[in-house]
Amino acid sequence: MEDLKLLVVGSVAIDSVQTPFGFREESIGGSALYFSAAASLFSPVSILAVVGEDFPMDEVEFLSARGADLSGLKTVQGRTFRWKGQYGYDLNEAKTLETHLNVFEEFAPELTERQRSAELLFLANIDPELQLKVLDQVDSPALVAADTMNFWIEGKRKALQRVVERVDLLVLNEGEARMLTEEVNLVKAAQKIMEWGPSGVVIKRGEYGVIYFAAGYVFSAPAYPLEELFDPTGAGDSFAGGMMGALAASGDLTPEGIKRAIVYGSAVASFNVEDFSFTRLASIEYGDIKSRFGDFVRMTAFEKDI
Amino acid sequence: MEDLKLLVVGSVAIDSVQTPFGFREESIGGSALYFSAAASLFSPVSILAVVGEDFPMDEVEFLSARGADLSGLKTVQGRTFRWKGQYGYDLNEAKTLETHLNVFEEFAPELTERQRSAELLFLANIDPELQLKVLDQVDSPALVAADTMNFWIEGKRKALQRVVERVDLLVLNEGEARMLTEEVNLVKAAQKIMEWGPSGVVIKRGEYGVIYFAAGYVFSAPAYPLEELFDPTGAGDSFAGGMMGALAASGDLTPEGIKRAIVYGSAVASFNVEDFSFTRLASIEYGDIKSRFGDFVRMTAFEKDI
Repeated sequence: MEDLKLLVVGSVAIDSVQTPFGFREESIGGSALYFSAAASLFSPVSILAVVGEDFPMDEVEFLSARGADLSGLKTVQGRTFRWKGQYGYDLNEAKTLETHLNVFEEFAPELTERQRSAELLFLANIDPELQLKVLDQVDSPALVAADTMNFWIEGKRKALQRVVERVDLLVLNEGEARMLTEEVNLVKAAQKIMEWGPSGVVIKRGEYGVIYFAAGYVFSAPAYPLEELFDPTGAGDSFAGGMMGALAASGDLTPEGIKRAIVYGSAVASFNVEDFSFTRLASIEYGDIKSRFGDFVRMTAFEKDI
Repeated sequence: MEDLKLLVVGSVAIDSVQTPFGFREESIGGSALYFSAAASLFSPVSILAVVGEDFPMDEVEFLSARGADLSGLKTVQGRTFRWKGQYGYDLNEAKTLETHLNVFEEFAPELTERQRSAELLFLANIDPELQLKVLDQVDSPALVAADTMNFWIEGKRKALQRVVERVDLLVLNEGEARMLTEEVNLVKAAQKIMEWGPSGVVIKRGEYGVIYFAAGYVFSAPAYPLEELFDPTGAGDSFAGGMMGALAASGDLTPEGIKRAIVYGSAVASFNVEDFSFTRLASIEYGDIKSRFGDFVRMTAFEKDI
């Protein structure tokens, strides 16, 4: 059996989302699912997560068809994790209306032999205690990246700090970076995070794109300016999935490789927000991504002399 | 006498500015002055504006030394325009505490023969009725750009609309673009503005950089990520000055030339905010700009294949 390229641990959920453009009740979601839908456009990816008996497994068949390994998506007794959120007109920040952990309350990730050997590992946004349990089980991935959210920064700072110290790349949004480091200035926030351990920090800024810091590197990538933007749910996770998938596909884990992967991640995220849930991500192919990557090239190119 | 390359009409002011990093009382400012300080790093620039008898003319000598033509900066009886503003920690938006138009209340721009022949014209943020008076007097500039602010969008929409219809390039911040067009989506806002007349729209987004729209073109330039940012006053005007100065220097008024000029403008603006008033802009040279332009090249570069 081939070695595992990319493993993601995170949530698989049933979301109800209200945006100014519509309401979608009880559709599949969750950080690990958005990540995998994006990553699988580039590379095989394996999911480690848990769902309840009410989860509509047939709706994730498009992932298997794309080569994602869902054998680590366990069904246990109880109801699937549920999230209910709302976005205003600016679409930059979700307001959480309801969170029901349900089967996630008892989730204790246990990696198979193959999952332990993963080359690349992404710890999507879940309880940092669970992220630590995964870190304790992997052999020696070439790159580990992690995401988090304000909820864990406020509630589980110590565990989260231990996670940060053990990952190579921290991926978070700008509000979270400021909250985690207690630094208003993003350059200083990124430096502080890198002093804690990670060799790179990827800061997501919604419609303003992404800024990436590593020793001697600053890289700024725009978001794709969309005329129609329906639902930002999963934008950050599909960005991370595209980025990690592109890294798995190229094998170039240097800052140059990460920069390019960030643009691929931005391209995938821009499709994701064009419709609710997985409507867009399930319908696109690698060719669509390549075409939008070309748009990013043109959108950032300028002549270098005066 | 050589033809006039670049003319700016706008305000020259005495500002009092409070930021989280300090308070600077009664220092020189104003849109035309910040514009000229930036533009003069690239090209000769001529200012048309008015000040009162209390204006410290010796403090703008650095502009003459840099080749700016201050003969159109008229001193009249009365007090100079005064602005008092405050910035919070996010530094993205100024809160205006006081505005005293003073000598600006009676200002009626009258262009000299030479000023009428300007190749490039920038209508900095002033009353759109004054901007129209300037447009009525110029011969046939190769490019006219204009800036504005929420105050005029709210108070003089009709006059402003006539200005917009007569310029080639509209430069404004994203809140103003939304307010002017009543479109939340920036792509749609830019399209609406271009339907009114301008062939291009440059939307300023503070710490997130600039996005430029023209027929068949979208270009996104980041802001320079600064570790120390003291005073954003004049950031937008020095951006516009750098952009127009670079256009005057290169003579390339195509979208490709505008893209490159936008990066030069962003480079100048990044120096401006490093200290209060003109402390930084007066101390830098073209070599500093070139060096930071190089930082922008590196900050936006990524490999184009996977």
